[in-house]
Amino acid sequence: MPSPAIENLVAQLTRLPSIGQRTARRLAFHLLQVPKEEAIALAEAIVDVKERVHFCAECGNLTEEELCSICLDQRRDRHLLCVVEQPVDVVSLERTHEFRGLYHVLGGALSPLDGVEPRDLRIADLLRRIDAGGVEEVVIATNPNMTGEATASYIADQLRGRARVTRLASGLPVGGDLEYADEVTLGRALEGRREM
Amino acid sequence: MPSPAIENLVAQLTRLPSIGQRTARRLAFHLLQVPKEEAIALAEAIVDVKERVHFCAECGNLTEEELCSICLDQRRDRHLLCVVEQPVDVVSLERTHEFRGLYHVLGGALSPLDGVEPRDLRIADLLRRIDAGGVEEVVIATNPNMTGEATASYIADQLRGRARVTRLASGLPVGGDLEYADEVTLGRALEGRREM
Repeated sequence: MPSPAIENLVAQLTRLPSIGQRTARRLAFHLLQVPKEEAIALAEAIVDVKERVHFCAECGNLTEEELCSICLDQRRDRHLLCVVEQPVDVVSLERTHEFRGLYHVLGGALSPLDGVEPRDLRIADLLRRIDAGGVEEVVIATNPNMTGEATASYIADQLRGRARVTRLASGLPVGGDLEYADEVTLGRALEGRREM
Repeated sequence: MPSPAIENLVAQLTRLPSIGQRTARRLAFHLLQVPKEEAIALAEAIVDVKERVHFCAECGNLTEEELCSICLDQRRDRHLLCVVEQPVDVVSLERTHEFRGLYHVLGGALSPLDGVEPRDLRIADLLRRIDAGGVEEVVIATNPNMTGEATASYIADQLRGRARVTRLASGLPVGGDLEYADEVTLGRALEGRREM
């Protein structure tokens, strides 16, 4: 690299997910080429999110206020609570426009091997919210992988008798090909088949 | 997006090459998750390169000093000059460990359609360097695409009679398959075949 500053930028960029050496180099040289204001705008945007954004006191979603915009929205259905692993999952679910309830963000999934235990997630907060009353159904939307499923089971056990607990359906992706579905997904699709 | 600051960060990230909405969102949420120091280190690295790095007064490569480390290196062969489009091309050529001469970075390629004319590139500087004497061979290493070839021809014309001018070979990529080579590349490989 032609300068220590560039070398350092490339090193910082490779710490980002899915950015390898080659991409980091390309991004660094791109940032060197753009007008100074454009590069500074990116740097400031990074500093800004770290300074302004924190967790919603109610649901654990990201917000710049004390409560997030979803918790504050009085038109949302407060009988329905959707449990997700990360704030980014809230964004994905909101993009479907299908869910009108509130969220509860755990901040991860149970993974004893990585040292993530129930107390490391916002599970006690969830139970407190349920016990405060008003929630009729908890939709568990943790990821359909090993840690997500383990987390879903654990939470379902905790909530037994306190609220109706449901889980997102597993099955074939819409627009996908049966031929390309893995056997576990196809098995789940069969298991979850519906009357038509 | 859960906050204007995150929305802005995603917008800034999508301005980077090959970063779409989805990747930008993933990077933004990653930066929200990492320790504050790690995110700030990236922001500072960006500001740093914009403040410290500029063009070498001699060759147009990037440097934090007046002259770049290659121009300053007395072990480099000063009879040999390699002309490239961008500073990143110097990095690629240096990684081969095959070139021991100096460089001249044009800052782009001729492209009348995009309004890039000879005076927008460091071509006058190149001619001045050649006229100052000492350079015996100029290796033109502009990209083997339309604008790069046009730039190579233009420079070769300008240098005629002033120095020996050569061009990087075109041909099959090493480790590649003849079957997958496009016909232009394969044609060039035939044209440039060598005695063995």
